[in-house]
Amino acid sequence: MGRPALAATPEPPYYAVVFTSKRTTEDPDGYAAMADAMAELASKQPGYLGLESARGPDGVGITVSYWTTPEAIMAWKAVAEHAAAQRLGRERWYEAFELRVCRVERAYGFRR
Amino acid sequence: MGRPALAATPEPPYYAVVFTSKRTTEDPDGYAAMADAMAELASKQPGYLGLESARGPDGVGITVSYWTTPEAIMAWKAVAEHAAAQRLGRERWYEAFELRVCRVERAYGFRR
Repeated sequence: MGRPALAATPEPPYYAVVFTSKRTTEDPDGYAAMADAMAELASKQPGYLGLESARGPDGVGITVSYWTTPEAIMAWKAVAEHAAAQRLGRERWYEAFELRVCRVERAYGFRR
Repeated sequence: MGRPALAATPEPPYYAVVFTSKRTTEDPDGYAAMADAMAELASKQPGYLGLESARGPDGVGITVSYWTTPEAIMAWKAVAEHAAAQRLGRERWYEAFELRVCRVERAYGFRR
């Protein structure tokens, strides 16, 4: 998808959605395709700043998306294709998840 | 380590440190041992609420630790063994990282 692995976010404050999930073993191909499609669709929403994602061999994954405002997060939640993906997530793909909406207050980085 | 994959955090507000990193290919065993030791040590600090972590086959990892207050986060950053691990991270283990300190404002979860 050409996204950088680490999101190039602006100076705080901005907002983050931390989505931690445990996958079922069902439908890995369908899940992967939807995850890619949702990352692509998110990147086109107003207020999107970036996205980072990792999933380990134990099925635990963390996706963090970054947004300018809480209103941008609410709007993204309500996008029709995203709402459909959320329903499939509960029905099929996730054993469990936690979603946390956060205000990023400070940040720093390191590059070799 | 016996940690649950998804942290059982209280009602917001509380704080999160989102640490996204790209590993070098150096020293996988040393890194894994230190990551386990730091997760264990973090869990004993005042104000610790939980930790979630995932790393994918591309070397991108996200670790989110949860804390009661920003002061608890600052104290954890300064713990001597943790400061030593941070130095090794920059010298050896990380190609790049971003660390973001966040205030968790709302949260919800799902269990099958």
